[in-house]
Amino acid sequence: MTRKSAAEFAALLASTHQAADAAGRVILPYFRRPLKVDNKADPGKFDPVTAADRAAERVIVKALKAAWPSHGMEGEEYGVNAGTSPYRWIIDPIDGTRAFILGLPLWGTLIGLMHGNRPLLGLMDQPFTRERFWSGARSAMYRGPDGREQRMKTRACASLGQAMCSTTHPEMFKTGAEIAGFDAIRSHVRSVRYGGDCYAYCLLAAGHVDLIIEAGLKPYDIAALIPIIEKAGGRCTAWDGGTAAGGGRVVAAGD
Amino acid sequence: MTRKSAAEFAALLASTHQAADAAGRVILPYFRRPLKVDNKADPGKFDPVTAADRAAERVIVKALKAAWPSHGMEGEEYGVNAGTSPYRWIIDPIDGTRAFILGLPLWGTLIGLMHGNRPLLGLMDQPFTRERFWSGARSAMYRGPDGREQRMKTRACASLGQAMCSTTHPEMFKTGAEIAGFDAIRSHVRSVRYGGDCYAYCLLAAGHVDLIIEAGLKPYDIAALIPIIEKAGGRCTAWDGGTAAGGGRVVAAGD
Repeated sequence: MTRKSAAEFAALLASTHQAADAAGRVILPYFRRPLKVDNKADPGKFDPVTAADRAAERVIVKALKAAWPSHGMEGEEYGVNAGTSPYRWIIDPIDGTRAFILGLPLWGTLIGLMHGNRPLLGLMDQPFTRERFWSGARSAMYRGPDGREQRMKTRACASLGQAMCSTTHPEMFKTGAEIAGFDAIRSHVRSVRYGGDCYAYCLLAAGHVDLIIEAGLKPYDIAALIPIIEKAGGRCTAWDGGTAAGGGRVVAAGD
Repeated sequence: MTRKSAAEFAALLASTHQAADAAGRVILPYFRRPLKVDNKADPGKFDPVTAADRAAERVIVKALKAAWPSHGMEGEEYGVNAGTSPYRWIIDPIDGTRAFILGLPLWGTLIGLMHGNRPLLGLMDQPFTRERFWSGARSAMYRGPDGREQRMKTRACASLGQAMCSTTHPEMFKTGAEIAGFDAIRSHVRSVRYGGDCYAYCLLAAGHVDLIIEAGLKPYDIAALIPIIEKAGGRCTAWDGGTAAGGGRVVAAGD
């Protein structure tokens, strides 16, 4: 990295942190907000995830557009704006909707930055547990509830038979090939745990999970997580070994 | 409750909190501790769960025995000591072993108190997220990361078709009857999420989860959770409607 590009990376990363800070402030008041159901109101009309999603995406887009007006921007609500530079931000304000709805602190705010087709930078923020995972210039970083920052490193796993595997839901595998692929892994690993969402990818980066296999992902589900895993020493690709940045069938491993 | 029994309940609850405080201090240094694997050491020799489990159970038993020497005591490592009073403490220092190993903050320390066959009092502590759920004299209580305490109340659910259901793992259903029972529920509810452990029961008490169905539980997996759910307005029984305090097949519902 040249001095100029290092300075630019630092500025991009600072914007990412600021956008995540703003998003966390917006989302938390919606988390575990009790659904007020009375006879007059239609309970279906209050959707805390959608409301939090929209509000958070707005503040993220606003922060990033102010700092980088020429960059492309892609978000679930916002849609796609190609911009006039090779940089494109990929935003998922609340990844792990089901976890969010149930009150489980495993959802996260994902902000990723692509340079052309290459995932350049990513951040996952969990504002309830006050944890943040991101890809720095040289390494993947973690900041815990105590505010301390530390480098993350994936762990080595001697064989598939020793792997601790995570996947969000067994029913995310829809086609015959996906079901067969997942079954092949499931029958060989030491254990499979369900329900990890984006949090599991970050725990893989931190060296606690060996393998994640998923399918049916959107680009914004995974783009921000790829550089976090790679900077921690792991791999995150499509099942066929190609880029995972487009979503779909994704596998991540510590080594 | 008479004044005397209210004072005794308060003293029992205070002991429970103190024991949980001590357990949290002991367990946290083991959580997400990286496994040091080198050529000389056998990686199987360092088991952070077992080490943390044992150490935490020791401090819990010590605190409770000091305060209530005549009470019975039941823990995974400690075994069973019947005591000389109708009171019996049921301890699971780390419920949710798999979550603990993977670094997910959904495990918890469970401390329950039985009076004869009746679950009298229960507490679940999650020291990483700094959350605690317990059954008070009149209501179920929650203390969050900000230290604020609030009453918990389960939520009403109009029908099975609207229920948000949680279960720890699809493979916990072993017999034909268990698999059929779970399938019957799964095909009717709005959604099933896996991987909740004791945390999911507490979220049910807090009104975020409608239904939990599990099987193969040990008494210490559930005894502490029953009074939390009941004091929050919910129900927690065996599948056949009998007491859940013995473990086995358990169902919990908000209403």
